[in-house]
Amino acid sequence: MIAPPQPIPAARYRDRLTASREALRAAGARALLVGPGAELRWLVGYAAPALERLTMLVLPLDEPPVLIVPRLERAGGAAAPAVAAGDVDLRSWEETDDPYAIVASALGTGSGAGSRAAGGSGSGSGSGVGLDRRLLVGDRLWATFVLGLQSTVPGASFGLASSVLADLRSIKDADEIRLLTEAAEAADRTVQAIAAGRLVGRTEGDIGREVRDRLLAEGHETAAFSIVGSGPNSAEPHHAVSERVVGPGEPIVLDIGGTRGGYGSDTTRTLWVTGGDPGAGPDDTFRQLYAVLEAAQAAATAAARAGVTCEAVDAAAREPITAAGFGPAFLHRTGHGIGLEEHEEPYIVAGNAQPLAVGHAFSIEPGIYLEGRYGARIEDIVVCTAEGPVSLNRSPRDVLVVSGV
Amino acid sequence: MIAPPQPIPAARYRDRLTASREALRAAGARALLVGPGAELRWLVGYAAPALERLTMLVLPLDEPPVLIVPRLERAGGAAAPAVAAGDVDLRSWEETDDPYAIVASALGTGSGAGSRAAGGSGSGSGSGVGLDRRLLVGDRLWATFVLGLQSTVPGASFGLASSVLADLRSIKDADEIRLLTEAAEAADRTVQAIAAGRLVGRTEGDIGREVRDRLLAEGHETAAFSIVGSGPNSAEPHHAVSERVVGPGEPIVLDIGGTRGGYGSDTTRTLWVTGGDPGAGPDDTFRQLYAVLEAAQAAATAAARAGVTCEAVDAAAREPITAAGFGPAFLHRTGHGIGLEEHEEPYIVAGNAQPLAVGHAFSIEPGIYLEGRYGARIEDIVVCTAEGPVSLNRSPRDVLVVSGV
Repeated sequence: MIAPPQPIPAARYRDRLTASREALRAAGARALLVGPGAELRWLVGYAAPALERLTMLVLPLDEPPVLIVPRLERAGGAAAPAVAAGDVDLRSWEETDDPYAIVASALGTGSGAGSRAAGGSGSGSGSGVGLDRRLLVGDRLWATFVLGLQSTVPGASFGLASSVLADLRSIKDADEIRLLTEAAEAADRTVQAIAAGRLVGRTEGDIGREVRDRLLAEGHETAAFSIVGSGPNSAEPHHAVSERVVGPGEPIVLDIGGTRGGYGSDTTRTLWVTGGDPGAGPDDTFRQLYAVLEAAQAAATAAARAGVTCEAVDAAAREPITAAGFGPAFLHRTGHGIGLEEHEEPYIVAGNAQPLAVGHAFSIEPGIYLEGRYGARIEDIVVCTAEGPVSLNRSPRDVLVVSGV
Repeated sequence: MIAPPQPIPAARYRDRLTASREALRAAGARALLVGPGAELRWLVGYAAPALERLTMLVLPLDEPPVLIVPRLERAGGAAAPAVAAGDVDLRSWEETDDPYAIVASALGTGSGAGSRAAGGSGSGSGSGVGLDRRLLVGDRLWATFVLGLQSTVPGASFGLASSVLADLRSIKDADEIRLLTEAAEAADRTVQAIAAGRLVGRTEGDIGREVRDRLLAEGHETAAFSIVGSGPNSAEPHHAVSERVVGPGEPIVLDIGGTRGGYGSDTTRTLWVTGGDPGAGPDDTFRQLYAVLEAAQAAATAAARAGVTCEAVDAAAREPITAAGFGPAFLHRTGHGIGLEEHEEPYIVAGNAQPLAVGHAFSIEPGIYLEGRYGARIEDIVVCTAEGPVSLNRSPRDVLVVSGV
């Protein structure tokens, strides 16, 4: 039995709320309105269920922050560290209440809120529209709540919470890096266990279930995804699993992840299954492709230093692949940030001129895909530190040639 | 090994697209804009991953429907039955493309779309705003995409897709009822297996993991939730699981569900664990509470006939509970619709004057909760048929008194 993860210290949430409010002020916005998801968990420590009843943190510039929850979920809200510490007020609503009235009240009377009936959604015409009336909603807030808020505060303009939170959330502190590291180590052990076991004659779906069971046994709370792309399916980057049966003489792209203490794991290794036949190893094209890929992944990792732009890291991965003639076969970005979300900022992609900073955590995952034939990908989670890039995933990056029987 | 579910016949999607377009026309709206989730799956059969790259079905009134997917997910989009049948066009976008330009193009030039730069989000000021410029977005579309669309089509007003889709989606056809029935039967067997096994000395979390494993072994694709509320936790309706160890002489509220073929299971039974001691059975208060609850659940089920309003069904459950003095302890609505979403319309709640219709499927799940002490809930999925209400869950509704050792 793996011990449960040490949680983020409760005092951290107060710092985050303070920093978010300062960023809100600097952005000239009036309030953050955040629903269930990573932003809420980061701000107050509450992993709220995403359901049809409104749950929302209202963090205004000049009024006390309020966590609004359905009556049914009051206990969960009360247990949130920032609520328990008295830094955030808790307001619950009954089944027949209008939760938007509570939102308007939490925004303060100065917001002109409360006139929910007036105006069509999305066509606000109130006076005084300006930066001081700008409300920032959680990026993944559901449309039903976005339009509900737009009707509640018809004079306001709306932006995304990420415009102030993304920079704060993307810089991971030591506790967050500890959780990411524990998650990565669990994923590494899972990859190794799968590679050491039987593969030939099993379906991708069956192997995917073993991945899930192993990640949970490793202390993950969720095993969010397991891509098991065998044979030609290895050339499909977002393939999940299928009923295809793994045979000898073919690769498997194994891309797995989940969460531990809320923080994500995400690693990819490419296996080659021989079925025990020494003559059924990788062919020359695959070996060449893989050598290029390994060089690309290493080059991008080495490039991922503070001050280097995300697009430069992407280019570092792309350059050797393009030089070898595989350019069009690397058909996705090089990586994505990771934390309380599986994919978050910073995105390691062409066109993103954001410079990396110490504390950024992201995937480096180039791939080469020959459609209809086979493909390969190598993925690590990498942290940008003052001493340079550190890969949290440490399992071997070579093609894992295994018998699979 | 349970056989995979028979899918919804491919031809059904064409009927749904046609019916949705007719409803759109009747509502005076211009287009549906639907992202990953139940609405997309219902319309085109595509269970798209919910990620940060835009995936969207654009269903305009007078232009061909278009499914827009990231390049990485092209294979998944192409496999959607409505796309494979040629009823929906597929457009994919590369990592550095602007997917909103494709949305604007799919809406047709008559929409005035394409001027994404103009206007702040949420404060449209274009000419010609009216019902013909009304766009209906998926209810769970993320704010990032809602605001992106509002910038893309600044003259439009925005509403929710449910305003035209909810009525269509809430009436289940025979194939959908078959899938709901198979899901319910799997959940019933799981409840029975848990009740027959060891409970005393195990944590709620451990029992919850067994629920998950059993639902998956029963052929569910997902085991979305398992509430294992033991002792005082049984009085917390949205409790999930904890590290509390189950002891003798206490109840467990077991509320479990997931999906099979995309359609949900959701059932609750209340156990009483004796630890093998005949003297550790339910006390008199619990027996009285449970008898009232059973009567309430039966009364609400019997009331759930076509033409009866949702609020009347809620009242039918509430009346005997209130008469017995437990009114304030029944602190949630009586039920929710179920289908491709765990919770969807119709909601069985006070204030909902919608009449039930043949084909509606929903939970009937009254509960009585004595805070700090214990509680109980009974939940079935019920279908409104021409012959009256039919409970899909058929496991015994009595309090399940078990030894648990």
